[in-house]
Amino acid sequence: MTATHTGAKTNPGRFFEDYTLGETITHAVPRTVKVGERALYHMLYPARHALYSSDQFAQNCGLPFSPLDDMIAFHVVFGKTVPDVSLNAVANLGYAEGRWHKPVWPGDTLRSTSEVIGLKQNSNGKTGVVYVRTTGVNQHDEAVLEYVRWVMVRKRDIDAPAPDPVVPKLAAALDAGQLVIPEGLDFSEYDFALAGEPHRWGDYAVGDKIDHVDGVTVEEAEHMMATRLWQNTAKVHFDTSARPDGSRLIYGGHVISMARALSFNGLANAQMVVGLNGGAHANPCLAGDTVRAWSEVLDKAETAAPGVGAIRLRLVATKGGDAFTLRGADGKYLPHVLLDLDYWALMPM
Amino acid sequence: MTATHTGAKTNPGRFFEDYTLGETITHAVPRTVKVGERALYHMLYPARHALYSSDQFAQNCGLPFSPLDDMIAFHVVFGKTVPDVSLNAVANLGYAEGRWHKPVWPGDTLRSTSEVIGLKQNSNGKTGVVYVRTTGVNQHDEAVLEYVRWVMVRKRDIDAPAPDPVVPKLAAALDAGQLVIPEGLDFSEYDFALAGEPHRWGDYAVGDKIDHVDGVTVEEAEHMMATRLWQNTAKVHFDTSARPDGSRLIYGGHVISMARALSFNGLANAQMVVGLNGGAHANPCLAGDTVRAWSEVLDKAETAAPGVGAIRLRLVATKGGDAFTLRGADGKYLPHVLLDLDYWALMPM
Amino acid sequence: MTATHTGAKTNPGRFFEDYTLGETITHAVPRTVKVGERALYHMLYPARHALYSSDQFAQNCGLPFSPLDDMIAFHVVFGKTVPDVSLNAVANLGYAEGRWHKPVWPGDTLRSTSEVIGLKQNSNGKTGVVYVRTTGVNQHDEAVLEYVRWVMVRKRDIDAPAPDPVVPKLAAALDAGQLVIPEGLDFSEYDFALAGEPHRWGDYAVGDKIDHVDGVTVEEAEHMMATRLWQNTAKVHFDTSARPDGSRLIYGGHVISMARALSFNGLANAQMVVGLNGGAHANPCLAGDTVRAWSEVLDKAETAAPGVGAIRLRLVATKGGDAFTLRGADGKYLPHVLLDLDYWALMPM
Repeated sequence: MTATHTGAKTNPGRFFEDYTLGETITHAVPRTVKVGERALYHMLYPARHALYSSDQFAQNCGLPFSPLDDMIAFHVVFGKTVPDVSLNAVANLGYAEGRWHKPVWPGDTLRSTSEVIGLKQNSNGKTGVVYVRTTGVNQHDEAVLEYVRWVMVRKRDIDAPAPDPVVPKLAAALDAGQLVIPEGLDFSEYDFALAGEPHRWGDYAVGDKIDHVDGVTVEEAEHMMATRLWQNTAKVHFDTSARPDGSRLIYGGHVISMARALSFNGLANAQMVVGLNGGAHANPCLAGDTVRAWSEVLDKAETAAPGVGAIRLRLVATKGGDAFTLRGADGKYLPHVLLDLDYWALMPM
Repeated sequence: MTATHTGAKTNPGRFFEDYTLGETITHAVPRTVKVGERALYHMLYPARHALYSSDQFAQNCGLPFSPLDDMIAFHVVFGKTVPDVSLNAVANLGYAEGRWHKPVWPGDTLRSTSEVIGLKQNSNGKTGVVYVRTTGVNQHDEAVLEYVRWVMVRKRDIDAPAPDPVVPKLAAALDAGQLVIPEGLDFSEYDFALAGEPHRWGDYAVGDKIDHVDGVTVEEAEHMMATRLWQNTAKVHFDTSARPDGSRLIYGGHVISMARALSFNGLANAQMVVGLNGGAHANPCLAGDTVRAWSEVLDKAETAAPGVGAIRLRLVATKGGDAFTLRGADGKYLPHVLLDLDYWALMPM
Repeated sequence: MTATHTGAKTNPGRFFEDYTLGETITHAVPRTVKVGERALYHMLYPARHALYSSDQFAQNCGLPFSPLDDMIAFHVVFGKTVPDVSLNAVANLGYAEGRWHKPVWPGDTLRSTSEVIGLKQNSNGKTGVVYVRTTGVNQHDEAVLEYVRWVMVRKRDIDAPAPDPVVPKLAAALDAGQLVIPEGLDFSEYDFALAGEPHRWGDYAVGDKIDHVDGVTVEEAEHMMATRLWQNTAKVHFDTSARPDGSRLIYGGHVISMARALSFNGLANAQMVVGLNGGAHANPCLAGDTVRAWSEVLDKAETAAPGVGAIRLRLVATKGGDAFTLRGADGKYLPHVLLDLDYWALMPM
């Protein structure tokens, strides 16, 4: 009558052969985010963009009050996918076609689903690449965020047959016209003094590069708390026995948020993140690293919203090394580069 | 006129001879817990039980919205007792007859009182065991939690006379009929997909053991922040000069919450903790330890609430070592065992 | 068309010659503080003063509910000034004439402005002292806090002409009559049992000294999270490459909050901080230090509010060493002294 089920009821994660093209995965554990999570974001990152810091500033920009940071939406939606998508992942390969559809307000409850849009076994026969389009929705079943991610996943059984390879066509970057401008957003009365910098959309030119100057040395306790907060449970972030060298790999999203917050210094008016064109976690980040950031203006576009311009930015996080250096002569990321992110933000014109 | 009162106004804590059988101690510093504390719980522990994560999930289970984690109630109520019960304690010896009477909602204010229900001087004449029944109440003077705890406390004066020994009769475990089911709780529409696992009450058998697989390496900053949050001020958790080896002892409740959160993986549907039958902090936990957990099903019972079953679980936290090992040939806890907890939870049938 | 602006858009901070006597600086990034920040304060510091812990306790004292800790107001208002006042500061020299005008409630949005009230170049010609009167206001444009601070700031150009020296006359201490008592405050029904100590205003005599006994060993993660939470971005707190020895200097305000929280043990009824007469950060605090505190009663005064007395306290934070020792024979602070703060608090009579 009594029996020992070693892990029989625990989640072993999906392997490559467990994915079917076209299937939709409902990710578990919906999460209501409130003003507590808002405060934590300001504790974990040096976040100073005024629209997320002050209800009055947000109201002056046409919003009912200050939304939760766009990256909170990303982390919560992403975190839900981990048990189904990346528990047996070898590598997070890329992002594309990410769009924020609606701000997330304190009190919203987020859920995620992912559609499998591509599958391709690797030539080694041991792993394959899974492409998913993940959508985060709120309690009104409205999409708040969608993005494509592809990961390399282990096969459980090397002899399992390879699926017909399907690699989705993904845009190199969103067209500015595809961006969703939050309802009511109006930068015509924008207060540059309270925002912290005088530089408006017109002051940035394609090709401009900005060294954000500041650095933050990261600690184990911080990145684990951040990652847990988004209910991301990947072992490598928490368990020193999960990696051969005993180190805990810092969640790539922690580096994204850190770099984005550091970019305030020089891009204080790049207020809202509305598009994610792509991104690579170039090298692992570990506790003790001092994260720095630089940005490059990749594109600019006008929008239909009053006073609102769109700016496409490359955001590079490093752990030292010279700003503005990215790849070596061999075309590979230099060892000090942690992140190379390509996103659209909204800025007062 | 001027005088130096070295500590004359500070709390030296109570010694064994300061307790009187039958007295009720009013613990200080009531605490209003809100959505901030809710968010912090998710940051400090890998907590994923859906009923505490999503207002909509909780509403689908018949509750008005998501309550604070049951362990927040425990930690806050417990923390208030520390200055009066365990400041001069040598050891926390056990728990019994713990019952959660009502969920704690954001905005509730908790207070604690403890009745001294047993006193027994030890044969060495230097210490004694104090038994208290602690009750936590909310701002409506409704009990939210009660439990019995006994601790070994130093005597101030070794020559103080020993009290008549009184050892309360404590139940080895609560009968399922003594458990309080939260008002309105109804699991008949329970959403297993959103909860994260398909295993219902009927899928678990007495004697089943589950290795929860995941591990978390704990840091000094984390356990101190958690312990402070519950206003637990015992020196050994915070002050490297309080113990001869300079280590900071991790609050046993931190290990409870960590293990309970880790138990999601295999017990995702053991949603609400309603009874605490007993518990032992078998060995000290220190920063750097990687906490793991395993569970054993000890008992099962039906309840009167729709779709709600009760499950009695042993929850064991370890710092490595083989899962499912607990005691050595000598009957003592093995050195890698941190916690042996016996509790009742509610689960969909 | 493309150009590399290394830091052209980032804030280099002001140098001594950038300040003009009489000018008012509007500090950027208003901040809405809510119950999340309230919870974090209790996580970061062993804060137990009941008026800030319990809505019901606060209501029993005539307030609508529990305000945010007075030090949250200080840290937020102070943090906003850092990019304009202390980015190139060599030293924070002093505080004076600090008054809390109104409690800060969850949901309030705080902004800061600073008036330059004094300028004096140092004889070395390389630095000068800048005196500012900083005012924090809420969303109703009501002052919540004002204080004078003076800092030593580097000159950008050593050859820049020295301004006419102006050193403001600052009160050595506020007169009790200048303190602002929060509207409605009434300690006539004060509950000493729930507050945690029986000692009332009348039990303290000028010259009394109290060793607060408890100690907290501080960690890098904690002080960085605290400092970030107040959007204080001074590099020395976060970036191990900012100081020659690779250490991160702990924000002086973190030591103030830690010491104030520790002072609960012996001053549990010194509930509200309403005046800041002066303060010195005597020696740097680094991670690994164990912070302790002692207090001295400097003055006492009655107030017009029912049951409310004012008490002027010296609060000294140390990292070890004997309590009640402050300065050496040479009149300088002893090496273990971290903080010497002079403030007014309100206490039940």
